[in-house]
Amino acid sequence: MDERSIDLDSLISGLSDGAVVIDPDLLAGYRQDWARDPDAGTPLAVVRARGTADVAATLRWAHAHKVPVVPRGAGTGLSGGATAVDGGIVLSTELMREINVDAVTRIAVVQPGLLNAEVKRAVAAEGLWYPPDPSSFEICSIGGNAATNAGGLCCVKYGVTTDYVLGMEVVLADGTVVRLGGPRLKDSAGLSLTKLFVGSEGTLGVITELTLRLLPAQPPQSTVVASFGSLTAATDAILAITSTLRPAMLEFMDTVAINAVEDEMRMGLDRTAAALLVARSDAPGEFAGHEAQVMVQLCEKAGATEVFHTADATEGEAFTAARRFAIPAVEKIGPLLLEDVGVPLPRLGDLIAGVTAIGERNDVLVSLIAHAGDGNTHPLIVHDPTDPDNTARAHRAFGEIMDLAIALGGTITGEHGVGRLKKAWLPDQVGPDVMALTRRIKDALDPEGILNPGAVL
Amino acid sequence: MDERSIDLDSLISGLSDGAVVIDPDLLAGYRQDWARDPDAGTPLAVVRARGTADVAATLRWAHAHKVPVVPRGAGTGLSGGATAVDGGIVLSTELMREINVDAVTRIAVVQPGLLNAEVKRAVAAEGLWYPPDPSSFEICSIGGNAATNAGGLCCVKYGVTTDYVLGMEVVLADGTVVRLGGPRLKDSAGLSLTKLFVGSEGTLGVITELTLRLLPAQPPQSTVVASFGSLTAATDAILAITSTLRPAMLEFMDTVAINAVEDEMRMGLDRTAAALLVARSDAPGEFAGHEAQVMVQLCEKAGATEVFHTADATEGEAFTAARRFAIPAVEKIGPLLLEDVGVPLPRLGDLIAGVTAIGERNDVLVSLIAHAGDGNTHPLIVHDPTDPDNTARAHRAFGEIMDLAIALGGTITGEHGVGRLKKAWLPDQVGPDVMALTRRIKDALDPEGILNPGAVL
Repeated sequence: MDERSIDLDSLISGLSDGAVVIDPDLLAGYRQDWARDPDAGTPLAVVRARGTADVAATLRWAHAHKVPVVPRGAGTGLSGGATAVDGGIVLSTELMREINVDAVTRIAVVQPGLLNAEVKRAVAAEGLWYPPDPSSFEICSIGGNAATNAGGLCCVKYGVTTDYVLGMEVVLADGTVVRLGGPRLKDSAGLSLTKLFVGSEGTLGVITELTLRLLPAQPPQSTVVASFGSLTAATDAILAITSTLRPAMLEFMDTVAINAVEDEMRMGLDRTAAALLVARSDAPGEFAGHEAQVMVQLCEKAGATEVFHTADATEGEAFTAARRFAIPAVEKIGPLLLEDVGVPLPRLGDLIAGVTAIGERNDVLVSLIAHAGDGNTHPLIVHDPTDPDNTARAHRAFGEIMDLAIALGGTITGEHGVGRLKKAWLPDQVGPDVMALTRRIKDALDPEGILNPGAVL
Repeated sequence: MDERSIDLDSLISGLSDGAVVIDPDLLAGYRQDWARDPDAGTPLAVVRARGTADVAATLRWAHAHKVPVVPRGAGTGLSGGATAVDGGIVLSTELMREINVDAVTRIAVVQPGLLNAEVKRAVAAEGLWYPPDPSSFEICSIGGNAATNAGGLCCVKYGVTTDYVLGMEVVLADGTVVRLGGPRLKDSAGLSLTKLFVGSEGTLGVITELTLRLLPAQPPQSTVVASFGSLTAATDAILAITSTLRPAMLEFMDTVAINAVEDEMRMGLDRTAAALLVARSDAPGEFAGHEAQVMVQLCEKAGATEVFHTADATEGEAFTAARRFAIPAVEKIGPLLLEDVGVPLPRLGDLIAGVTAIGERNDVLVSLIAHAGDGNTHPLIVHDPTDPDNTARAHRAFGEIMDLAIALGGTITGEHGVGRLKKAWLPDQVGPDVMALTRRIKDALDPEGILNPGAVL
């Protein structure tokens, strides 16, 4: 028995029965998240924590033995934030799935392994609503949402994950369990540590419980669908809408995405359109219809070729589902490099035009979909991994798109996180002084550097 | 010339002409904020920065000479966050007053010295709205609002300062100027450093510019005013309202505050009532009236003795102004020790009853007003500083109220910050591990400990 296996025995004995997985076949499934990082390592073991005690014991052990720990939620991350490292532990929270809804305080206390959709369903049963809605909401975990400060379609009106996290239990690098914030709508006591851990991508600690703020059930919505003959007309409509009212959703698909979705769903989308917008109002009562009417007029004024609106929930949801399905639909064309760049709203047109030019220049197909109302876009670079030249051009385009976003005063990631795939561009966005500041905080909280090494920093 | 004055010369020569104030009469006005901390020191000098360069030069100098720096906005803080320390520098941002509103991006880029009301007015001129509204909004600075994560009356629906800060320029302890975040509605690139500096009370850096998210102008509001014969009836009504809809405001005044306000304003408030609620809806169009009707019914059902609602803006604003005037009105009875405790909403009744009992037990007059909809209360302890026994009882009550809030799962400060007055209670609220975590971040960012020493930690 070598030293390594002795070490692992001491880990196994400190955890719940069966929490430690070392079967190579099972380990293989924990090497990558949806970023499919080709440089993923092979972990020593996976810990499927049954509770906070398992997480704390794992980190105490890892800290003592200086073993890297990669925290993992549902593994649906798109930036390689949960890529395993050789000889490390993958610490999965997938089995921590309790939820407690308090309808009077309007909060839910949830463990990280619950899926976003499960949180939504549990609180809906109490007449309440947890707004953040990544397109992957049916398969992504609430812990991963907090780790990446995930967004979604409703953010344009309702904000992102951090806006709903009132408190958390988090295990620090050395295994110390701390509780931050709590079920209080206002709290200025001490540093905003809760907010620091949201979006920290497992580099500062492992979140083991979240206290989430809830809203009353969302009112019935009216949905607007508009087709445009040019990208400029579509972005004009976007700016006209956001300058006039607060849509509950404002989504964009380009012609590649429209056609890919239509290939799969056959719902009668205009295949000749350059762009499609799907917008929503959830203003109370007939005001949803009024706002929808205003959005229809603004789209027409911007030059939409076809516009309609509906108050029918099923019909409206079909178009939202079409937009959510755009990524898997485009993926049918070929494997994707998935971007998440965002810009200040007035630069959205420049970003879309620039992405098109980058695709053409590098001779790769790039489709662009967007949470247009908050300037957050997902250029999807189709590539052929079996063709080295095509792959090289796709990766060049991937970098050039982030360079473009930065040049336009934007961000390399609006909602997916930096992970490992985008970290080479982070210094270009934030500059050396912010990187140094980030490093100081990282070193203060994880002096041994065991937490998700290689991610973000 | 002693060593100290030589040092000061090097500070003066590095800053804008006239930025350094050493006149003892002028210095006296910068020793305290509104907390009137009796232990305030006498600063070596006040720097009235003309811009970021002055702030950076001051911190470089202070860092090199290990001189404490107390950042100061408008000096309206209520927790002693801007109490001067002997031999230190008070670094005032009051003269940094530029603002730039970008209506298309829906942001304002503001310097910290602008008053909250001035920000509101500047953005209103563009048809936009900056929601956070501390009662002191006409005299408090936007920089101080960010430093304390200030709240106000609209927070129950619209959130607090941190929800509106998209980015900032901040000067670190050693004088390094960094830019965090920016005019992007979604940004997951790197740690949430912007959010860490909001609410850090000048202990981690000095904010020199803020990028604020704006909303479209608030729709016309309907206001509900309800009197109650008992505190229980009032808190029942509060919970009934927050369980049913999202009021744009839900404020509470007890009988002491009602009578103090009525003494000053003569607006016909029911002097015999145990409590008064002032609530608002800003739902679009006639829905504001509908929501107001629902709130009226819920108040009646909870046992209100008198309820009315109005869609008249002037009349509605008069009642809101009455609530805002409660603190100065009660202060006419005598000097106040001002609390800012908050609890999870279902514990609001327990908190109010407990505060009453603490006042009686210590034989001091305590009035209680509250941003009731988010469980944030301001018990006002009237005391007589010339009477040592009364003062001792008032201070005992001050501590007991924070102990009570902590025991109820609450916070010692919902929106004012910890400053110096409440720091003895912070460890009781957050525990030793969170204090140690806070200390690690403080030491990483301000290793010499020059930034606002004695505040928070």
